Amino acid sequence: MNKFTKEVMFVGEMASGAKLTVPVYAFTADNNVAAPTVYIQANMHGAEVQGNAVIFQLLELLQQCNLQANITLVPYANPVGCNHKNGEYTLGRFDPITGENWNRMYHFDQAIIAPFVEQNLDASAEEIQTKFQQLLLAQIDKKLAHNIWGITTGQRIAYQLQRLAHQADIVLDLHTGPISSKHLYCPEYAQASAQYFDIEHTILIDNDFGGAMDEATFCPWWSLQQAYQASGRNFTMGEGAFKKESFTVELGSQEQIDLDVAKQDALSILSYLQAKGVIDNKQYQPQKMTRYACYLKDYKALYSPMGGMIDYLADFGKPLAAGEPLARILRMDNYGDGEALHYISLDQQVIPILHFASASVNQGTELYKVFCNYFEI
Amino acid sequence: MNKFTKEVMFVGEMASGAKLTVPVYAFTADNNVAAPTVYIQANMHGAEVQGNAVIFQLLELLQQCNLQANITLVPYANPVGCNHKNGEYTLGRFDPITGENWNRMYHFDQAIIAPFVEQNLDASAEEIQTKFQQLLLAQIDKKLAHNIWGITTGQRIAYQLQRLAHQADIVLDLHTGPISSKHLYCPEYAQASAQYFDIEHTILIDNDFGGAMDEATFCPWWSLQQAYQASGRNFTMGEGAFKKESFTVELGSQEQIDLDVAKQDALSILSYLQAKGVIDNKQYQPQKMTRYACYLKDYKALYSPMGGMIDYLADFGKPLAAGEPLARILRMDNYGDGEALHYISLDQQVIPILHFASASVNQGTELYKVFCNYFEI
Amino acid sequence: MNKFTKEVMFVGEMASGAKLTVPVYAFTADNNVAAPTVYIQANMHGAEVQGNAVIFQLLELLQQCNLQANITLVPYANPVGCNHKNGEYTLGRFDPITGENWNRMYHFDQAIIAPFVEQNLDASAEEIQTKFQQLLLAQIDKKLAHNIWGITTGQRIAYQLQRLAHQADIVLDLHTGPISSKHLYCPEYAQASAQYFDIEHTILIDNDFGGAMDEATFCPWWSLQQAYQASGRNFTMGEGAFKKESFTVELGSQEQIDLDVAKQDALSILSYLQAKGVIDNKQYQPQKMTRYACYLKDYKALYSPMGGMIDYLADFGKPLAAGEPLARILRMDNYGDGEALHYISLDQQVIPILHFASASVNQGTELYKVFCNYFEI
Amino acid sequence: MNKFTKEVMFVGEMASGAKLTVPVYAFTADNNVAAPTVYIQANMHGAEVQGNAVIFQLLELLQQCNLQANITLVPYANPVGCNHKNGEYTLGRFDPITGENWNRMYHFDQAIIAPFVEQNLDASAEEIQTKFQQLLLAQIDKKLAHNIWGITTGQRIAYQLQRLAHQADIVLDLHTGPISSKHLYCPEYAQASAQYFDIEHTILIDNDFGGAMDEATFCPWWSLQQAYQASGRNFTMGEGAFKKESFTVELGSQEQIDLDVAKQDALSILSYLQAKGVIDNKQYQPQKMTRYACYLKDYKALYSPMGGMIDYLADFGKPLAAGEPLARILRMDNYGDGEALHYISLDQQVIPILHFASASVNQGTELYKVFCNYFEI
Repeated sequence: MNKFTKEVMFVGEMASGAKLTVPVYAFTADNNVAAPTVYIQANMHGAEVQGNAVIFQLLELLQQCNLQANITLVPYANPVGCNHKNGEYTLGRFDPITGENWNRMYHFDQAIIAPFVEQNLDASAEEIQTKFQQLLLAQIDKKLAHNIWGITTGQRIAYQLQRLAHQADIVLDLHTGPISSKHLYCPEYAQASAQYFDIEHTILIDNDFGGAMDEATFCPWWSLQQAYQASGRNFTMGEGAFKKESFTVELGSQEQIDLDVAKQDALSILSYLQAKGVIDNKQYQPQKMTRYACYLKDYKALYSPMGGMIDYLADFGKPLAAGEPLARILRMDNYGDGEALHYISLDQQVIPILHFASASVNQGTELYKVFCNYFEI
Repeated sequence: MNKFTKEVMFVGEMASGAKLTVPVYAFTADNNVAAPTVYIQANMHGAEVQGNAVIFQLLELLQQCNLQANITLVPYANPVGCNHKNGEYTLGRFDPITGENWNRMYHFDQAIIAPFVEQNLDASAEEIQTKFQQLLLAQIDKKLAHNIWGITTGQRIAYQLQRLAHQADIVLDLHTGPISSKHLYCPEYAQASAQYFDIEHTILIDNDFGGAMDEATFCPWWSLQQAYQASGRNFTMGEGAFKKESFTVELGSQEQIDLDVAKQDALSILSYLQAKGVIDNKQYQPQKMTRYACYLKDYKALYSPMGGMIDYLADFGKPLAAGEPLARILRMDNYGDGEALHYISLDQQVIPILHFASASVNQGTELYKVFCNYFEI
Repeated sequence: MNKFTKEVMFVGEMASGAKLTVPVYAFTADNNVAAPTVYIQANMHGAEVQGNAVIFQLLELLQQCNLQANITLVPYANPVGCNHKNGEYTLGRFDPITGENWNRMYHFDQAIIAPFVEQNLDASAEEIQTKFQQLLLAQIDKKLAHNIWGITTGQRIAYQLQRLAHQADIVLDLHTGPISSKHLYCPEYAQASAQYFDIEHTILIDNDFGGAMDEATFCPWWSLQQAYQASGRNFTMGEGAFKKESFTVELGSQEQIDLDVAKQDALSILSYLQAKGVIDNKQYQPQKMTRYACYLKDYKALYSPMGGMIDYLADFGKPLAAGEPLARILRMDNYGDGEALHYISLDQQVIPILHFASASVNQGTELYKVFCNYFEI
Repeated sequence: MNKFTKEVMFVGEMASGAKLTVPVYAFTADNNVAAPTVYIQANMHGAEVQGNAVIFQLLELLQQCNLQANITLVPYANPVGCNHKNGEYTLGRFDPITGENWNRMYHFDQAIIAPFVEQNLDASAEEIQTKFQQLLLAQIDKKLAHNIWGITTGQRIAYQLQRLAHQADIVLDLHTGPISSKHLYCPEYAQASAQYFDIEHTILIDNDFGGAMDEATFCPWWSLQQAYQASGRNFTMGEGAFKKESFTVELGSQEQIDLDVAKQDALSILSYLQAKGVIDNKQYQPQKMTRYACYLKDYKALYSPMGGMIDYLADFGKPLAAGEPLARILRMDNYGDGEALHYISLDQQVIPILHFASASVNQGTELYKVFCNYFEI
């Protein structure tokens, strides 16, 4: 039975002086040589709690696994968001003071790429891997080092998590949608890995850095690989020195804990880790299912064409024909002298993935997110 | 086909001067003699939107009914709460500025009872009915009349709704729980009426006025009936001059609109109205079901014994044996050096009715509400 | 130099398991015999932070005093409210989940009075004092003891503070208004003590328990004294066994820390403590000033007669003649086709004490609180 | 006396169907030929209300002016933000559902510049002005035109305001800081215009588009001028066809209305309009004062190095020497066994311009914004 360590990371202070802490669990493999190391975190958005239950189940299961590489797991990644209530619900997505999305505060400075390639043009793959990881860590350390002007609350949390993530080859950031089916954000180069998760829908993302954890950990390496390619040296992303893979795993709906479903999601993650050689437990194999993907540009949001109260009609995960209703909008103020019911549909076939968390929407509230131009993978 | 009128009631102003308005629908019966008149409102709590859909279905159905009495219907009863967002969710239960529960601001002054009885000791039942209703309306008008000190935002809304409600014999206030099964708040004297609704669980409430709409409309009459009784005249509550009945109808969960379920709830209300003679449409009959009730003192809240993330386990509406788990609480901060999972159970058999809207709870958050000492009715 | 102890009281847990703690400072007097003991707390409402600075200054000053009795000081009394942000501001007055005012959750059960008097009709004053204090503490302990149904988040905090307060003879609960001048809530029987504070305006409150800390600590004793009086034994409130005095000290405006002003307020409290014999330091004497008071029924709120944006005009603390403007309300939506400016005045002379924290108000928002029918004390 | 028109612009709908409207006031000059036209708006951030009072005073004064060009004035620019309360305060800066800053949703697509210059390389200055303005308006119209996917709530508001702003040569967006002195955001090319405002501190901003109103209206023209320059045609920004000037005018602190101060700010704006020839009223002249400026990169935020309660010490608008305290931080939890007071200072001379709105801050909350490397203009 594998042992793990538990540490408490200090990530900030509240007005009363109360310490903001994050628990960090770590398994150390005996023979951590070639297999990729792993970093898994959950609950960066306050309401997206199910990942904590998945980490619970992973901790239970990993103790029984044949570990080939180090694994670090961080539940309750954001102690401000985790405890922030507005009414009965947990404020989900942003710093209540500034409005900044908690998952847009990670760091990557594209300007480090060119000088690094120039200075390490002929370095071995191993040297590149080691030195570039050191550079990424040094960048974060510099951000966190004492600075008379300081950094924001969210940056302090994000950078400390990112420092852990940069030390791993594989990064899984566990999120949820509002009311949502399971789906996966996957870098385009890692498309083949999507089949190891028991998740039917995958969004393929390119090399744009927007501040999210997944991007903050794969974009540096992808950018590096491309810069080397431009300089005439070809490395393959997802392999060897560039074996970095980062995914945002969307586990379903927010504001819910279900330990039984979490067990299934933990098994799904283990089958991915098995496929990548992180564990050696052949019983963990992906389920057979048809998997669909679309490119990020085709993962589209539908904004409500009017204010109203929404009866969400479309099933998640199933193709919806053009013209079929996604939702109907109730407008009681129009009853008797206008149209009290409006049906919403699209002009193309889509797969609905998630919808807004509340029935009450303003004109312009994001109603649904759907796959367009999707394809089987 | 019955016609209805639609008016817009002005209930306040926002900081920008934007008018707060409420739509009021009214059917007038041709032969409104003996049958009780009806007032139905929905959405006094911002997140409890399903009642609007029920009023939509009632408006559709009532146009085809054989009306015996006037019916007034008010969706979107609280325009402040209805539009108030905090994050993705609607602020449910209270004025965001003051914290006052929107459904605790109605008016009843017990001090009016004794003088009225004294002055009308020998009046006929009809006189009593007419004069007491006039007195109740005069009380509200006085509250709403210009006063140099003013009234609160919530009082201005509540009193205008109450003025409509006092003009009816039957009052239905459509609410929902957070995550909830259907249930009914019913005055003890009106227990027999609970069987006409397609609702399995009824809470029987006594004559305590706490500021809610149902209490504000039945407590005055109950108090009056009791004062007459103390003076030697006996009237029966729910009949004749005292035919007033008020219910809070809890339609299920908040933050949801489902027009199909709303149709079922509208039919349930029609079978109650048919039973009371408000409509003459024999096709509307209550469903056969076992109905349970408990007294308000036995409708108990369970507060979380610790902070944590809740996996709600108990099914609503089914007896749960003593010792069986209601929920399990995940505490990842304790994993590895404490108990990460805690099971919550009670020491008696209960029927779980509703639970908190979010998986994240503080120590002391209301987890569940359950029926204790319930009985069949 | 007096020494003090510091303990950390555990009052709850958040969803992440984070502990809610409150620091408790205590001075123990060598010769604590006749002098009244003291309990001082601050910041029960999240935004009302200035009391923490006053406690800082008191801790500095009390170390140099000639202490005659024990003194307990509790800053940051409410760790939920203290750290709860909505936008840039601190959620002030109520539990963000339930809307309950944090200062309406203390406990007093009037039903304990009659049996106590009956059982202790002929007890000595000292016995009464000791036994009744024990009874009050036992009541709180019972509330806090393990109960399968639990208690609310706010009750758990309030009861633990109240357990400390019940052990003292004098209770000072440090609050602030929104935008406010200094004022004092004082029980009617303790009016003579108001002259020891450097506070010009005092509200005299009677024996109604509404859940606040001051009421929760003086109402039991006042009720007891009245019950004894009805039984023929006369005790004087504020003296001997009934020397209990509780005040809510309103220090000015919320959302502000000013350590220099806090020093002045600390000196004001020391002059009260000196007058009551808690310290023996004659240099602490109240300032000479004209002090006004009014009864609670005459401390009136003015609610905005319309929505709009307020230019608050009236100075705090100075009599404002009937008809003089308190405020003018800007309504740009009316400019050009209505009245864009409205002046608000009253029909009697008042002393404005505080006003709302924001310029933006809805119709019915509490604009001002003022003294009517005030008198010099 | 000049007449103005008043129209109500419809900018969205709430969940209840309530219409979101914005009042638009417009003066039309008789001889609107050479003088620049003007657009002024206020209150895009909900808590920043003082601009409404300035528009009130401008409407009063402009009726008496000798108008040379059309002027449009829009108070209450954001009806969602304007009425959004969380506790007593107005949610200031962002959409409560999404966290997006209301003043980061305007539109400019840099990709339109190159084709325009190519197609209009030899056009006259007048043609360029007319055609480019038409292009900017067409871009906005296309965004607002029916689109099956819709646009966000904030975009719908912002684009409709921007459509008005693009029709003017001069744009003034009236904002406030949290607790703040007056200051001005001014494009570098328009530095000479800063002297016409009675505002001592100016931030000079360059040609980076970040979504704000000022940028959205001057960056297109600045980018166009630079593209022409690269193609060999030189135009001067701020003159002739490129006379576009946009400013964000920060009027002081949020959550306050002061009509007397607003009059002073209106006079300041009139002296700028007089200088630009929009009015011909020589009595409106800027006050004599020393004006300081710094570049945007030198307008720096100081984030709190710890959680705590802040006693803000530094005066606004006055140079603060290196090492002098900006603030002291109270940490009562450390009293007795740590440092309860911490002084915050910087290592260089700065001018403090604004500070955070609340005394309670988390580690990483923005405490102050200050001018570094400032200079007289």
